[in-house]
Amino acid sequence: MLDPMTRPQTRIRLRLIFGEDGRMFGPGKADLLEGISAEGSIAAAGRRMGMSYRRAWTLVEEMNRAFLEPLVTRTRGGVQGGGASLTETGATILASYRALEDRVGEAGADEIARMQELLSDMSSGK
Amino acid sequence: MLDPMTRPQTRIRLRLIFGEDGRMFGPGKADLLEGISAEGSIAAAGRRMGMSYRRAWTLVEEMNRAFLEPLVTRTRGGVQGGGASLTETGATILASYRALEDRVGEAGADEIARMQELLSDMSSGK
Repeated sequence: MLDPMTRPQTRIRLRLIFGEDGRMFGPGKADLLEGISAEGSIAAAGRRMGMSYRRAWTLVEEMNRAFLEPLVTRTRGGVQGGGASLTETGATILASYRALEDRVGEAGADEIARMQELLSDMSSGK
Repeated sequence: MLDPMTRPQTRIRLRLIFGEDGRMFGPGKADLLEGISAEGSIAAAGRRMGMSYRRAWTLVEEMNRAFLEPLVTRTRGGVQGGGASLTETGATILASYRALEDRVGEAGADEIARMQELLSDMSSGK
């Protein structure tokens, strides 16, 4: 068993799969929405994640099609020729996903601790 | 809002990330352990998942290194020249992961329903 002081913290990544048509929402899209909200720009949000502009745009378009209302809207004008921001639906989806992560972390803490206790000490092999 | 009768069921996929050394456990490894338990063979478990023998072996080796005890053990002899089965630790990890999935589904049901209600009806576009 690992020393609790040096035991690594376990993180959970959640991916939601909506039905059978390939629609998914997971950590990458959540982080991208968060970045757009913080940076006011799809390009800047993508850069922050080391993601190409094309990739960031593709994810935004996927998200915008997947829900009843777009999650991200482009805003025109300004020195930089327009930015982007989250719609109300975008903010709701992001908040629900983060709330889900929190609930999962709480609800799963016992099982995660059980698995974590069985981890080998890989730090000694480094 | 989609008709509740035709609304697709949302599934959650969970990936656990243990610390910073790249150790992960997710749906692919869980299904592989389940397949090994059912088939008694790494090759057969991999085939069932459409996974190459090499890939299945790589995942087994990763899992065996990641935990204090191996999760999968090879058994010798027999007509087919030996098979594989889960160790007690392997069975424990698989059971904990499945229990975690169940708890997460229960704990997250409200948030998932909230997101699901905002899905567009993509079936009409098919």
